[in-house]
Amino acid sequence: MKLSEIGEFGFIDRFSGKFSSLNEAKVSGIGDDCAIMPLDDEYEQIVTTDLLIEDIHFIRSAITAFDLGYKALAVNLSDIAAMGGEPTASFLSIALPGDTDIEYMDDVMEGYRALSEKYKVPLLGGDTTKSPTKIIINVCVTGRVKKSQAKLRTSAKENDIICVTGSLGDSGAGLKILLENIKTDENTASLVSWHNRPEPAIKEGLWLGQKKGVHAMMDISDGIASDLQHILNKSGVSATIDMDKLPLSDALIQTCDKNRWDATELAITGGEDYRLLLTVNASDIDSLTKQYNRIFSDPLTTVGQITGDSHKSIKWLKSNNLHTPGKGGFNHFSD
Amino acid sequence: MKLSEIGEFGFIDRFSGKFSSLNEAKVSGIGDDCAIMPLDDEYEQIVTTDLLIEDIHFIRSAITAFDLGYKALAVNLSDIAAMGGEPTASFLSIALPGDTDIEYMDDVMEGYRALSEKYKVPLLGGDTTKSPTKIIINVCVTGRVKKSQAKLRTSAKENDIICVTGSLGDSGAGLKILLENIKTDENTASLVSWHNRPEPAIKEGLWLGQKKGVHAMMDISDGIASDLQHILNKSGVSATIDMDKLPLSDALIQTCDKNRWDATELAITGGEDYRLLLTVNASDIDSLTKQYNRIFSDPLTTVGQITGDSHKSIKWLKSNNLHTPGKGGFNHFSD
Repeated sequence: MKLSEIGEFGFIDRFSGKFSSLNEAKVSGIGDDCAIMPLDDEYEQIVTTDLLIEDIHFIRSAITAFDLGYKALAVNLSDIAAMGGEPTASFLSIALPGDTDIEYMDDVMEGYRALSEKYKVPLLGGDTTKSPTKIIINVCVTGRVKKSQAKLRTSAKENDIICVTGSLGDSGAGLKILLENIKTDENTASLVSWHNRPEPAIKEGLWLGQKKGVHAMMDISDGIASDLQHILNKSGVSATIDMDKLPLSDALIQTCDKNRWDATELAITGGEDYRLLLTVNASDIDSLTKQYNRIFSDPLTTVGQITGDSHKSIKWLKSNNLHTPGKGGFNHFSD
Repeated sequence: MKLSEIGEFGFIDRFSGKFSSLNEAKVSGIGDDCAIMPLDDEYEQIVTTDLLIEDIHFIRSAITAFDLGYKALAVNLSDIAAMGGEPTASFLSIALPGDTDIEYMDDVMEGYRALSEKYKVPLLGGDTTKSPTKIIINVCVTGRVKKSQAKLRTSAKENDIICVTGSLGDSGAGLKILLENIKTDENTASLVSWHNRPEPAIKEGLWLGQKKGVHAMMDISDGIASDLQHILNKSGVSATIDMDKLPLSDALIQTCDKNRWDATELAITGGEDYRLLLTVNASDIDSLTKQYNRIFSDPLTTVGQITGDSHKSIKWLKSNNLHTPGKGGFNHFSD
């Protein structure tokens, strides 16, 4: 049997159970944005890692070297944000073809450094080696979160309100613009920019992490359809999403109008949003949203509600009618 | 300018200084086997990461899937051992071509698990994704070491005795046997086995780490010639190595005799030994060696001495005469 037949999660399922006997009670491993390990009296440590491969996760001609370095770290910081944590260090493994220009790599490292400085994350180690043909970048980030305050995928409760930070679909549209060579204008430039240089929601995640009313949280990397499903699976609940409420940027709406794309579909399945998806105790949502929107420029938006249905499924509503969106998420081994 | 012209360390030098302003006083980053970070009242945390790429670090036809999984973790545990630490968790990123057989990957994970169980290291997270053609494995391992007890490359002192654990050159010979298709016998099998399934010196490193007389320590991954140079550069000292004292296994000697290979050259530049290289306070060496050799089956062997010469160079002695061994070490970007 080939890996492409069972996909990323099928593969993980095959081995993760066999390792779990090694986990001590105080650690939490595979299955959330970050692992959780003991740190000190006040904090737990969180750790995440992400692998980026040329021609799978990025095309060299479609992203600047600076943005590539920035994004390689950003997608990891986003996982730290998703736990409500703060990053403490990064580790960078990089494999490069021998004929790579030094100046190109200097720019990659400048992008990596710019984001490192923004959130004061030291680069403490890594590995550099030769690659046969493609650029390969693995980043591992450690972070910390106050004891028992890490926001998990397992914590969604019936009647919780489902929210997202910022807007959805911008990155998916940005990728489509790059792949289809759509003409550059102000709108397409901003969508491509979010795709190539996403901003991790570190400050937003830290703030939300301190709120008791916030139950489950994760970052949206494969599209809300696919990612929300993880929360439902882990929490044993279902959800209703009001597609009319999904936050769409003006740039996305105008670009979709122009090109006859379905903005809502992009918002649901586009992927690489790196926004936060969270479930909030229903009685806290109004005050939380008000406070959040006073502090942060990108709004917190209510998009649905958790239901007690044990089928762990998502009901999509459009104009109050049930709707079936296109195939969501991304199988990392399919062709 | 191309990366192959400046090599791995030239590339690291170009950016590492630019990041150092982000390091707090209590962390130690790029430049040793592991980074060191604060953990709790008793321990510091150490972190290492290594990237293995098919056709650069291994050839699929020359290593079993089980051994590949074992080795991917072993090379990281070896870095933990080199600090005198104990491993606490591992994180595995793996990229696979879609047509990879599941059964092959099951075996890779079995090898990884066998070593994880041996040293009780939980696998707490990672990333799995598709690769265009090659298998790519990045492992990140966290560990811990008693406060201020981490053994560093900077700590070698004039007159220290230089020692290594186990024997040198076995892995280099194993690789040569594989590349040159040398016929299998008991000796060649044991050399290939050390190349494909090296045993990290976790117990040895922990024991040595607790000894005050042990000053600098690192693991031998690129060959003693190249690796000792790192200690000299970091400590600002020089060294004399007695080539006649380099510990050679019977399997290596017999295989080299048969094939007219130079066993000593393999011991010096072969690489991937994953033995420990350490410098020991001269007055402690006799008692340390006696104690060590009572506990561990592979001996601790004195191979030379640190000298105060500030040129940071190695004098190689053969039958008490100065000797120049072949080009040592491994430039990870050269062709």
